[in-house]
Amino acid sequence: MPLLVTGTIGMDDVVTPTGHAQQVLGGSCMYFSAAASFFGPVRLVAAVGEDFPPAFRDSFKQFPNVDLAGLETRKGSKTFRWGAKYHANMNSRDTLFTELGVVGEAPPKVPAAYADSKFLFLANSPPAVQAQFLEQVPARKLTVVDTMDIWIDTAKADLLALLKRVDGLVLNYDEAELLTKKLNSVSAGRHILDLGPRFVIVKKGEHGCLLIHRDGICSLPAYPTERVVDPTGCGDTFAGGMMGSIAADPSAQKDPGSFASIRRALVHGTIVASYTIEAFSLDRLKQITLGDLTNRFDEYAGMVRI
Amino acid sequence: MPLLVTGTIGMDDVVTPTGHAQQVLGGSCMYFSAAASFFGPVRLVAAVGEDFPPAFRDSFKQFPNVDLAGLETRKGSKTFRWGAKYHANMNSRDTLFTELGVVGEAPPKVPAAYADSKFLFLANSPPAVQAQFLEQVPARKLTVVDTMDIWIDTAKADLLALLKRVDGLVLNYDEAELLTKKLNSVSAGRHILDLGPRFVIVKKGEHGCLLIHRDGICSLPAYPTERVVDPTGCGDTFAGGMMGSIAADPSAQKDPGSFASIRRALVHGTIVASYTIEAFSLDRLKQITLGDLTNRFDEYAGMVRI
Repeated sequence: MPLLVTGTIGMDDVVTPTGHAQQVLGGSCMYFSAAASFFGPVRLVAAVGEDFPPAFRDSFKQFPNVDLAGLETRKGSKTFRWGAKYHANMNSRDTLFTELGVVGEAPPKVPAAYADSKFLFLANSPPAVQAQFLEQVPARKLTVVDTMDIWIDTAKADLLALLKRVDGLVLNYDEAELLTKKLNSVSAGRHILDLGPRFVIVKKGEHGCLLIHRDGICSLPAYPTERVVDPTGCGDTFAGGMMGSIAADPSAQKDPGSFASIRRALVHGTIVASYTIEAFSLDRLKQITLGDLTNRFDEYAGMVRI
Repeated sequence: MPLLVTGTIGMDDVVTPTGHAQQVLGGSCMYFSAAASFFGPVRLVAAVGEDFPPAFRDSFKQFPNVDLAGLETRKGSKTFRWGAKYHANMNSRDTLFTELGVVGEAPPKVPAAYADSKFLFLANSPPAVQAQFLEQVPARKLTVVDTMDIWIDTAKADLLALLKRVDGLVLNYDEAELLTKKLNSVSAGRHILDLGPRFVIVKKGEHGCLLIHRDGICSLPAYPTERVVDPTGCGDTFAGGMMGSIAADPSAQKDPGSFASIRRALVHGTIVASYTIEAFSLDRLKQITLGDLTNRFDEYAGMVRI
């Protein structure tokens, strides 16, 4: 079933305690779509500037399931750029610079051919922009949104209005606290359900994730790894693995937002993210296959089995 | 099979964001033995002062599986006292005062009748003191020790000598980092295995625990709960549930330190600790039964099932 993602594609500069990467391919939409593409086709809606390097465009060839009909190259505009430096424990980072470029202009349009998409993921954007995308995908059956602290702080009314119209919300632990003023992640999650969504997924980085669903709670640790090179994109690939696996799972089509469906999909998200962190940019995802994901899925299942 | 624990019994003053408790029963040995006693008999070796309140002694009646033959009441000495204030998110705390009393004197002796104990847990103490206990329990088959930052900082040589003689180490996430200088918990755990133990359990509070064993890795989330009243004693009851369940499990007797044995036991520890946090002191543990633990075990298993 068709899956569509909206978000950013950009050029990142990343410094971690073990290395650095300059002007590498990044952006939420890029990470999400690469991750989702392991499971099936994914439609991408994003804009880049005229300066978007041809080599970056070629990178998509390694993820042939990504449909680029919604990738707009905007003349006279610049590609989104972002730089960050991670702290010693990799759990937090400082943003070094953000050059919005095309991301600060009018959002890209959803191609008419994509209006039949059944699964929709709105990566982090201003909530009012995310709401516009909703209207362009009227056939959607499962809509999940990401958000971040800046919108909770500066566009809370828009965000609250958006939450009434979506099935699920994905956000970080501290963002859940910020949104709800609850210092306990279960309490924060339950509070968010009162705001509209059927489920919320609280991402806790190296500590895994917590699903608070109207029909149950699920807590999953991250895949325990020593190969931590760059956490950038882990949250987006986590979401991509989750949504991609749901869209591709025949048994999930009747009620894709059910507790059982989301719970199983979270494991796929966890596994894809565990590869993302092993290298800069999409370097590790370019090297692996669905078979690698399946093998690690089984290994992980053994690690958390009771 | 007989289980023995050494550690402190004391009087605690605890302030949390939601309440406070003054002069309540506490101490590692108290928490551990109460938790372990749900599963079977547990022998306690600890000392209290002449001032130990009769009402506290009566508290043991609610945990009839705790054998008090090793509880020494030392004339002229004072009971250990400790006070702490938790921060807003309950993940960290400031120690307000520590009055060592009898804990600063000669350690209690293991009664001769306890020398046949097969399972030994050495709660946090100076590592040299922990080593003396080892010698008094020559029949031990599985020995697990706890430690903390102060001994890593001030008695590291003693701690390293101790680690060569024990099967398992339990410690907090930041203590594992401090001991190994590794900022990744898997790397820290593997490093600790090189120091001697067959397994190490890294406690992460609300984020669960990580078992690094020579034969595998297991990661478990904490039981997701909104009822967070007082985290004091969670680590000790976690260890108590773990050791108590191993000592009582017929299938674990052949190789109680095996990966399968420790992994299963960690779930029991997780469940007992999830009750401890729901009230001050041992108040919640006094209210529950083994049936409650079993029910929550099943609920938790459902939450983390893949």
